[in-house]
Amino acid sequence: MISTDMCRPLAVETPDKILFLVMDGLGGLPGDEGKTELEAARTPNLDALARAGITGLHDPIGRGITPGSGPAHFSLFGYDPVKTDIGRGALAAMGIGFDLQEGDIAARINFCTLDANGIVSDRRAGRIATEECARLAAKLDGMRIAGAEAFVRPVKEHRAVVVLRGDGLSAEINDTDPQKTGLAPIPPRAVVPASQRAVGVVKTFLERAHEALAGERKANGILLRGFAARPAIPSFRECYALRAAAIAVYPDYKGIARACGMAVIDEGQSALADEFTILENHWGEYEFFYLHCKKTDTYGEDGNRDAKIHEIEAFDALVPRALALKPKVIVVTGDHSTPCRHKAHSYHPVPILIWGAEVRPDEVQSFGERACAHGGLGRFPGSEIMALAMGNALKLKKFGA
Amino acid sequence: MISTDMCRPLAVETPDKILFLVMDGLGGLPGDEGKTELEAARTPNLDALARAGITGLHDPIGRGITPGSGPAHFSLFGYDPVKTDIGRGALAAMGIGFDLQEGDIAARINFCTLDANGIVSDRRAGRIATEECARLAAKLDGMRIAGAEAFVRPVKEHRAVVVLRGDGLSAEINDTDPQKTGLAPIPPRAVVPASQRAVGVVKTFLERAHEALAGERKANGILLRGFAARPAIPSFRECYALRAAAIAVYPDYKGIARACGMAVIDEGQSALADEFTILENHWGEYEFFYLHCKKTDTYGEDGNRDAKIHEIEAFDALVPRALALKPKVIVVTGDHSTPCRHKAHSYHPVPILIWGAEVRPDEVQSFGERACAHGGLGRFPGSEIMALAMGNALKLKKFGA
Repeated sequence: MISTDMCRPLAVETPDKILFLVMDGLGGLPGDEGKTELEAARTPNLDALARAGITGLHDPIGRGITPGSGPAHFSLFGYDPVKTDIGRGALAAMGIGFDLQEGDIAARINFCTLDANGIVSDRRAGRIATEECARLAAKLDGMRIAGAEAFVRPVKEHRAVVVLRGDGLSAEINDTDPQKTGLAPIPPRAVVPASQRAVGVVKTFLERAHEALAGERKANGILLRGFAARPAIPSFRECYALRAAAIAVYPDYKGIARACGMAVIDEGQSALADEFTILENHWGEYEFFYLHCKKTDTYGEDGNRDAKIHEIEAFDALVPRALALKPKVIVVTGDHSTPCRHKAHSYHPVPILIWGAEVRPDEVQSFGERACAHGGLGRFPGSEIMALAMGNALKLKKFGA
Repeated sequence: MISTDMCRPLAVETPDKILFLVMDGLGGLPGDEGKTELEAARTPNLDALARAGITGLHDPIGRGITPGSGPAHFSLFGYDPVKTDIGRGALAAMGIGFDLQEGDIAARINFCTLDANGIVSDRRAGRIATEECARLAAKLDGMRIAGAEAFVRPVKEHRAVVVLRGDGLSAEINDTDPQKTGLAPIPPRAVVPASQRAVGVVKTFLERAHEALAGERKANGILLRGFAARPAIPSFRECYALRAAAIAVYPDYKGIARACGMAVIDEGQSALADEFTILENHWGEYEFFYLHCKKTDTYGEDGNRDAKIHEIEAFDALVPRALALKPKVIVVTGDHSTPCRHKAHSYHPVPILIWGAEVRPDEVQSFGERACAHGGLGRFPGSEIMALAMGNALKLKKFGA
C-alpha cells in the first residue's frame, strides 16, 4: 500500500500533531559482543516509548534491497519509492532552497581542472573552498542564452548547481562528467529528440562558462551531472491535509522535504540539540514535523561503532523534549540501515516505534532490531508508515461505507 | 495477494466444509485495566481453537486505514477491497433480497417531510414505522415510465429502495438528498451523458411519487441516494468452487453476501443462537458458511464495553455447536476493529484464528490481540484469508508444475 494514494481522499485537517524522528541509517548489525548499535546503546527514553507504543520493522524499498537516501525518504513520507524519482540536479537545487519552477531544468556542477589539451586533470579542482565556489558561481550566474536564463548557485566546496529557465527545455541530457581524470569532458547530447533545444543552450552555457573561467588557476572548467526537471510530486498538504515542516542539517534532506511540499526551517542549525530547539520554537506553526539526525548514518558509513552508539544515546536524551510538546503521534525510525560493519547503507529492515494515545500497544519492552521483530506492526513496507501515523492521529476518514 | 484472483484457476470441488465465524468489529483497545474487550472476555472455546490452530492479525484494507463494512467484508471474502465497489443502492436492494438484474439501477429512498414551499423539513419523515413505510412503498410500486418499470420496496422505518428496470439506464446520477433540512431536494442530473435517459425516468418517477404522496401528513416526499447498478463481481462458485451460504441478521451483510453469489438463509432469525441452529439445519447443503454476529460491533459503536465483552463470551459458548458439525476449517475473526473507546470502526488490525486438521499450529495459547501478534500467520492483508482457508481445506491445486 502506498500511503499518499490511500490517504489522499481520506485525510482530514485536525490540529493534532505528528512528529517523525528519523535517525539516518539507524539499523545495524551485531558487533563482537553480539549486539547491534541500537541494542548496545542505552536508550531509556526510546525504550519507554516502545513499551507504551507499538513496534515493528520496515523495509524501505523491499526485502533485500539497499535503499539510497532519496527513495528511502520517499518511502518514509508515503510515496512509492520505486516510481517516485527525483533527479540529482533537482534535488541539489531544492536542497539549497532554490525555487525550482515547472519547466526549469537543473544540473549539478563540479568545478574541475582542465589541462592545456582540455583533459580533466582534477575532477574537484583541488576541492576549492566554499567561498571560492561562491565567487566562481557568481561569474557564471545570469547568462541569457537563446531566450533562456541560467542561474548558477554555489553548494559546497567544488560543488554548485545550474538551473536553466526558458520555454521548451527538456532534461534528457547525458552527464558531461567523464567520471575519471585523463579524459575530456563528454559533450552534451540529446537523449531524446525533445531535448535538442536544451542541449543547444547547455553547449552555449559550457562555452561561455569556460571562457569566463579561462584565467582561473584551479577551477578553469565545469562538469555537469544529473540533469533533471522539477519532480511532479503531490504535496503533503494535498495527500495528508498537513502543514509540514522539515528540520534537517544536510541539503539533500531539505531538498527531498521541499519536493514533498514541506517548509524547511533553516536557522543555520548544525547540532542535534539545535534541531530540537527549532522544533520547540515552531511547534505551533505546523501539524507535521520531520526531524532528521544525520550523524547516525555518517558514523555508520565511517564504521565508527562507538560514535554511532553514542549518537543514538545523545538522540535518546533529547526525546523528553519532544514528548513535552505533547504530539498526538511520535514515529521513531530510520530511513534505512547503515551497519558499521558494512560502512555503507544496507538492505536490513529498519526498527520503528509508533507512540500515541490511540496506539494499540504490543508486548515489546525495548527499542532494538530483535525486539522490534516481535512487534505488533510486524514487518512491512516503509511506504505504509505515513498511513499508520495518520490513522493513529485520527486524521483519516473511514474507507467506504 | 487477492484470494479471488489467485484461487480461481486453482480451486477444486471437494465435499469438505469451511466455516467463517465473523464477529463484527471484533478488535478493540485496552480498557482501564489494561485488557482489550477480547482479552478481557472469558473465551475457553476460542482459546482452545487458537491453541490447536494458527493465529495472526489482519488489516482489512491496509495499515492505518479504517474500513467501512462493505470493503471490510469484500476483503474477508477475498476480493480486492479497494477496487471492488458496491453502490449503496445496489447493496440496499440486494440486502432485502431483491433480485437485482444486469441493467437494473437501484437507489435508496428516504421518505421525508416537505413544507408548503417544497423545502425538506424532516429528512426522515419522523422515522415512520416500518408498516407505514410498506404502505407508502406499495403506493409507488409498479409505475411504468417511458418503457421502464419501477419497483419500490420497503426496508425499515423511513427507508425504502427503488429499482428501475429498462433498456439503456445508467446509474451515474447525483443524490437528490440535500443532507440537511431547510433546503429543497436537489434535482437529478446526469453525471455523464450516458445517464440522460435514466435521469428522465427518475424525474418522472419523482413527480408521480410526489403526486401519490401529496395527501400524506408526514411522508409527503422522497429523497434518493446512492444510485448504483448491480456490481459485476465474480461469484464464490466461480472463484472458489464453493456453494456458499450466509447466515446474518442485518440487510447490508445479506446484500454483500448476495453480491458475492452466496445463498442467504433467511428464517427470520434475530438471536445469535438461532444463527447456529440454522447452520446446523443446513449443514449438508453448502461447502462454505459465513455466520455473522452483528452485536459485537453495535456495542463497540455504543461504547458499551461490558456488553461487547458479554457478547464475545456468548459467541464463545456457541462455538462447540459449530465444532460438533466437523468442519474441515474454521476461521474466527472480525471484519474490522470497533474499540469501545472509539465508539467507531478503527484502523487497528483484527485478530484471526484458523483451525483445522491440516493447519500448522503456532505457540499462541489464547485468542486476543496481543497473543495473535505473536501468531504464525503474522500480520497480513485480509484479502489473503480466503486463500488460507482454501489451502488449509485442501481445496487448491498446486500453482504451476
